[in-house]
Amino acid sequence: MPDTAPLLLRQDRDGVATVTLNRPRARNALSHGLLTALREEFAQLARQEGDVRAVVLAAEGPAFCAGHDLKEMTGYRADADRGAARFAELFDLCSAVMMAIPALPQPVIAAVEGVATAAGCQLVASCDLAVAGEEARFATPGVQIGLFCSTPMVALSRNLSRKAAMAMLLTAELVGAEEARALGLVNRVVGAGTAVAAAQALAAGIAARSASTVRVGKRAFYEQLEMPLAEAYAHAGRVMTENMLARSAEDGIAAFLDRKSG
Amino acid sequence: MPDTAPLLLRQDRDGVATVTLNRPRARNALSHGLLTALREEFAQLARQEGDVRAVVLAAEGPAFCAGHDLKEMTGYRADADRGAARFAELFDLCSAVMMAIPALPQPVIAAVEGVATAAGCQLVASCDLAVAGEEARFATPGVQIGLFCSTPMVALSRNLSRKAAMAMLLTAELVGAEEARALGLVNRVVGAGTAVAAAQALAAGIAARSASTVRVGKRAFYEQLEMPLAEAYAHAGRVMTENMLARSAEDGIAAFLDRKSG
Amino acid sequence: MPDTAPLLLRQDRDGVATVTLNRPRARNALSHGLLTALREEFAQLARQEGDVRAVVLAAEGPAFCAGHDLKEMTGYRADADRGAARFAELFDLCSAVMMAIPALPQPVIAAVEGVATAAGCQLVASCDLAVAGEEARFATPGVQIGLFCSTPMVALSRNLSRKAAMAMLLTAELVGAEEARALGLVNRVVGAGTAVAAAQALAAGIAARSASTVRVGKRAFYEQLEMPLAEAYAHAGRVMTENMLARSAEDGIAAFLDRKSG
Repeated sequence: MPDTAPLLLRQDRDGVATVTLNRPRARNALSHGLLTALREEFAQLARQEGDVRAVVLAAEGPAFCAGHDLKEMTGYRADADRGAARFAELFDLCSAVMMAIPALPQPVIAAVEGVATAAGCQLVASCDLAVAGEEARFATPGVQIGLFCSTPMVALSRNLSRKAAMAMLLTAELVGAEEARALGLVNRVVGAGTAVAAAQALAAGIAARSASTVRVGKRAFYEQLEMPLAEAYAHAGRVMTENMLARSAEDGIAAFLDRKSG
Repeated sequence: MPDTAPLLLRQDRDGVATVTLNRPRARNALSHGLLTALREEFAQLARQEGDVRAVVLAAEGPAFCAGHDLKEMTGYRADADRGAARFAELFDLCSAVMMAIPALPQPVIAAVEGVATAAGCQLVASCDLAVAGEEARFATPGVQIGLFCSTPMVALSRNLSRKAAMAMLLTAELVGAEEARALGLVNRVVGAGTAVAAAQALAAGIAARSASTVRVGKRAFYEQLEMPLAEAYAHAGRVMTENMLARSAEDGIAAFLDRKSG
Repeated sequence: MPDTAPLLLRQDRDGVATVTLNRPRARNALSHGLLTALREEFAQLARQEGDVRAVVLAAEGPAFCAGHDLKEMTGYRADADRGAARFAELFDLCSAVMMAIPALPQPVIAAVEGVATAAGCQLVASCDLAVAGEEARFATPGVQIGLFCSTPMVALSRNLSRKAAMAMLLTAELVGAEEARALGLVNRVVGAGTAVAAAQALAAGIAARSASTVRVGKRAFYEQLEMPLAEAYAHAGRVMTENMLARSAEDGIAAFLDRKSG
């Protein structure tokens, strides 16, 4: 593969966009270039909400994603500030990419084969849903090289129970697909090599729904999660009233009542 | 069953009130009338805290609860504002009913047989505890008819892990009783048709405890859940000091120490 | 064992401090003296962060910890205020001990054999990680004696799902080791009688890492848990930038890149 290969691939079919990390020889490490490409792709997807109704995030090659590109980051150490400014900018960029996933109007489904580690594991945790091949494995191993997975922990600790997240962060152990499912990191485990197809099938099911309904629901989900109970209900009640007045609900409910009485 | 059948049934025995949704032909859909009846029943139970020490929430007929009454809601569309005001009032009423459950002085145990969907699933999630018959099933399928289950998600996402809740909301899939237990939506799965009896037995065990102790503990549970750690401990410490000074703790601890030394 | 036996034992080896509750005849009940000893030991461990890199919390005798010392507390009732001031001081002391565990620079691993109840169960929930022998059991049974486990619930409800925590608090039932693992209260179940050795092995693995990296990561973990998402990422990004500039990360990453290219 030439050096000019695109860092990200994208294939659209029937309202489902499959975005594929394409640095297989670097184990899809999240270089500054790849993070920038992801940020731009997500911005583009947000603009395409009329056409794209669900997103699958996949990866080329045997590893899903090895996290940050440590070789590139080490190069920053030659800067006058020992890299401080560029490290800060890189982590800000990476966090912006991770937060762009819940902020997207479309649901994003990770399709994981191989190993997802550090920021690669965070990428899976940041997706709305995740499907894993049965040989997929997950870890946050930064502690082994003196760099605690502090930004990955933000996503990890919002998906797993407290002690399970802490164990991954402190022991660096690889967690298999079935255990990742039991812990809440992935939704579904499928045969090795079939995660992309399974995620695309799941995405196609979502793409068949009303796009505006899905968008409204996904946004409300993350908004209400960070509110106290009464505020969450007040917000969700407003969302649902607006939803009732939308054409999709009017038509959908009418068709449902017709079928019931039919 | 005549149209004048009460929307809610109630049977009290030995400090346990069993409240039963009684619109079996409408799959116990939460009409405005049924929600109003639930609100009033919960207000009445709050006033009866001296007599009623635990509540079982059950349902008549093959379905536990099908969520909102879509036929009734569709009728609101004839209003000048296309139903906006009445939809908002209905969702406020429904949220008030859901929030009344954690606010009740008595623990409330859902006893689920059949299907609990949308706001029916929310009702289960809102209870303090839940017992399900092994054929019970759960879903938040609003996305299928263009009406995302936005208010149900408030309760669902406070019981299940993030991705599990998102999967139910986005896929509309029915989740079986055992999976619901693994996900945190119900506490216990029992033989089909025995959920009410099992919930009543669980309630009887709670009813045998000091009512004031249970009331104080349940209230503190939901209060401290929404506080940061240090504030939660300060609050719980005050609650526990007051509890120590109550007669129930004085007597209970004295009897315990007697047994130990006896 | 004479009355002058120390309330806490401590043994250090290779950077791992094993702290052992030593009131076996009182089932390691958390008397005012034992809580004070724990507070002082944790303060001492915080000062020893250069030497001690991980902590195992174990217990002497057949019970891990029976919670508060009810006999001692009952003695407070003879005070003019019926014990109010001393109960409040005791719960404050206990909460300070529990909060000292996440605040320690070193990870703390509970090694549980036998029964951990009430504040004893809270102690396990408060640790960063927990290993249990297969016959270990857990409960929050205060409701049985009129004293709801209100302070234990603070730690319990931050480890378990909502309904699982509520079930333990309302039913007082003993939860076995395997179920405790499924619920999130412990990380690992090992053969009966081997929990201390297993916890020490886990601690030794952590002690082999960069102490400053572990300290920074553990602190960030609990800090970001209580923040909204965007704030959590901003904080974790700053932590990670500082971490990159530390010697441990510089050396660790360089060695990692050497091995990869080697």
